[in-house]
Amino acid sequence: MKKTLGISLLLLSMALSGQAKEDSIQFSRISTEILNNGKAYTELKDLTKNIGHRLSGSEAYEKSVQWAAKQLRDAGADKVWLQEVMVPVWERGKESMQIKTAGGTWKSLKMLSLGNSEGTNGKDVSGEIIMVQSLEEYDKLPAEKVKDKIVFFNYPFSQSYVETFKGYSEAAVYRVTAAALTAKKGGKFAVIRSLSSAFDDVPHTGAMRYDEKIAKIPAVAIGNTTADELERLLKTQKVTAKLNSNCGMKADKLSHSVIGEITGKKDQSVIVVGGHLDSWDVGEGAHDDGAGIVQSIEVLRTFKKLGIQNNHTIRAVCFANEENGVKGGVQYGKTAKETNEKHLFAIESDAGGFSPRGIALNMDDNKRNQIKGWAGLFLPYGVYDFEGRYSGTDIYPLHDMGVPTAELVPDSQRYFDIHHTDEDTFEKVNRRELLLGAAAMTQLIYMIDKNW
Amino acid sequence: MKKTLGISLLLLSMALSGQAKEDSIQFSRISTEILNNGKAYTELKDLTKNIGHRLSGSEAYEKSVQWAAKQLRDAGADKVWLQEVMVPVWERGKESMQIKTAGGTWKSLKMLSLGNSEGTNGKDVSGEIIMVQSLEEYDKLPAEKVKDKIVFFNYPFSQSYVETFKGYSEAAVYRVTAAALTAKKGGKFAVIRSLSSAFDDVPHTGAMRYDEKIAKIPAVAIGNTTADELERLLKTQKVTAKLNSNCGMKADKLSHSVIGEITGKKDQSVIVVGGHLDSWDVGEGAHDDGAGIVQSIEVLRTFKKLGIQNNHTIRAVCFANEENGVKGGVQYGKTAKETNEKHLFAIESDAGGFSPRGIALNMDDNKRNQIKGWAGLFLPYGVYDFEGRYSGTDIYPLHDMGVPTAELVPDSQRYFDIHHTDEDTFEKVNRRELLLGAAAMTQLIYMIDKNW
Repeated sequence: MKKTLGISLLLLSMALSGQAKEDSIQFSRISTEILNNGKAYTELKDLTKNIGHRLSGSEAYEKSVQWAAKQLRDAGADKVWLQEVMVPVWERGKESMQIKTAGGTWKSLKMLSLGNSEGTNGKDVSGEIIMVQSLEEYDKLPAEKVKDKIVFFNYPFSQSYVETFKGYSEAAVYRVTAAALTAKKGGKFAVIRSLSSAFDDVPHTGAMRYDEKIAKIPAVAIGNTTADELERLLKTQKVTAKLNSNCGMKADKLSHSVIGEITGKKDQSVIVVGGHLDSWDVGEGAHDDGAGIVQSIEVLRTFKKLGIQNNHTIRAVCFANEENGVKGGVQYGKTAKETNEKHLFAIESDAGGFSPRGIALNMDDNKRNQIKGWAGLFLPYGVYDFEGRYSGTDIYPLHDMGVPTAELVPDSQRYFDIHHTDEDTFEKVNRRELLLGAAAMTQLIYMIDKNW
Repeated sequence: MKKTLGISLLLLSMALSGQAKEDSIQFSRISTEILNNGKAYTELKDLTKNIGHRLSGSEAYEKSVQWAAKQLRDAGADKVWLQEVMVPVWERGKESMQIKTAGGTWKSLKMLSLGNSEGTNGKDVSGEIIMVQSLEEYDKLPAEKVKDKIVFFNYPFSQSYVETFKGYSEAAVYRVTAAALTAKKGGKFAVIRSLSSAFDDVPHTGAMRYDEKIAKIPAVAIGNTTADELERLLKTQKVTAKLNSNCGMKADKLSHSVIGEITGKKDQSVIVVGGHLDSWDVGEGAHDDGAGIVQSIEVLRTFKKLGIQNNHTIRAVCFANEENGVKGGVQYGKTAKETNEKHLFAIESDAGGFSPRGIALNMDDNKRNQIKGWAGLFLPYGVYDFEGRYSGTDIYPLHDMGVPTAELVPDSQRYFDIHHTDEDTFEKVNRRELLLGAAAMTQLIYMIDKNW
């Protein structure tokens, strides 16, 4: 018995090693094809330079919908369609902010209104600035000290974390809640130090949220060097600020996510790879998230080009409205539920087109461990970290329906230098880094398609 | 006995785990200090913007010697000195190259003479271009087909490797040998397709070597898009090239490596961390190798700042003349041998200031395995790859004397886009990526200082 078991194990391990060898060859074919013939980089150039930024509801966004549908067809998708979704429409309009010290003159500051923020309706709103370093400090301030003031939340992005997303998450609460908190104590508007890892003067926008029960006052972000200067001034003197802005929410609008797929040869259960097609209304939305879009299209193209016979349907989804509503992701999940379409797996790329280092796995331990068992195949491609337990924003609705989900984990050092800014441009994307991200997702989907 | 052993193992493992915890805390202190207060990035800005490129023998190089000595003193080195070394002096001077098709007019090409190449002494040298794709193809060419011709070695940098250094090594033989091979068959000069991973028109210089027995003819590099265009032309027609250049070797000159150290508290055996202070005469030598210099200085500063009591002497070495002679590295090894100075370990950073991914270990398996046993401490810092078996060029003389050596392994995707070009500027360096490289080296040196 012992001997037989020994031999069985030997045969099994030989079979497994043959299997591993076949997979390793397929991994290499995928990587070589994408590094040599990948189109993600030139497609990203086209998207960023010929369409540019593309906030939900904008004309540019609808142009990008047509663009994405064409790229998916060119990539060889068997079927391409638009999924209707109602999206919020936020418009920035003109905006300016100035500060003045006692006896000084008004001085303009570089700033950006936060996304979804109301403006001042084109009127000057001014008042004295008070500065707090943290929510704890703000919580202790009595309302009379805030009333009619402008609150400057001077919370710095922490440089201490190796993974910059931790610093971002920690600081994001200021962006999201500054206006509501300021309004609650009767302040006029809120200013935040940008969620930025760079020591420059670039303001970062991004979504904020109102408390529906209280006044919707404006919130703006300033760059780090402006924040440093303001901090310095406020330590010794009174500073008055004046804001004039026109931003605000308009009526919701019909828009679209874009979907393309290669039909499964064995069944039609679905594997999703996606990113979000919308971006903020600054820069070019290159890393966030043009990268995820062109990488997802690359996955389809690579399956077609290499003639990999997919058992299940492989679907690239370009989600609408991630930035200021996640309506595309929610609609996708809703439709999947309504049509009772079986989803095997979904992965999103929405952390920038940088060198991949890992894949975060948001699923039960059995499936996690199965994927972690493939780690040796990924290691030669610089992909070694499977410890994260989260997945992309747009596929959380799928996750909540019980679908195993994941997110590509690129190197995070440069992302928050340029995230949600004028600096998120094509020039900041490296061709090989972008392509390796596409390769890692293709490799994982190849394994899941074959084994699930 | 068994029980006693069990308890001893338990106690040992408790002690070890206490040890690991202490180390893990020290790793975190090092990373946090460097990410928050590191000076490497601002120092690199100073070096690149106020001194710029600094080829051996140039006035700028000698300025950088004074600069490095000052930085080392400011970092808190107990002792700073210059190590004399005779270095080769190569000067570029003016250079231009033009091509012409039958019936066409002369058209200028963007090009760079290769480092150490002789020029045309300011005279026009022209002839018909013949193109070969590989050394194999060139070897088969009879000498009469090469005689009086210009040979275009059109070997492309391979995009297929995940680690770009493999593509570089493969192509480097063309840069090093093109002139000697061309001269051997009577050609007039050699042109190579740049060793570049980018699809742009930036020519890459770098060291070439002559065969002392044959004529020293010029060698130049052209960027990828110019090479593509030339390839296209040569497939259908005769193309003539004309080169006019003044480059060449001058008399050797006295120069200096710069050394600073913190004296060992227990003994004076030496741990070296280094980079090379010289650069090519284009761009700013930011990644190659300003990065390695400022990271090495950061290691010393961090030991001082955190008050880590080093058992052994920790020495930062800014080597002279890596690019076109390695005379600084050779002199350092020679001096160490002559003075019988015991070296425990040496590490170099000379692969760019990108996010660290690993440390290559060039030493016996016992020592390798000991370091690999610390891998768990490095993983939270994104440093996971200890498989490489090589070390920096400047510390090969130490390696050859039996000293365990190593090299920092940063992400390699962007390096050969800008290596040895006008594009190797400060703007291409990311602050956090640079600092994390310094942190990884400080962490390793902390472990080696403590355990060896």
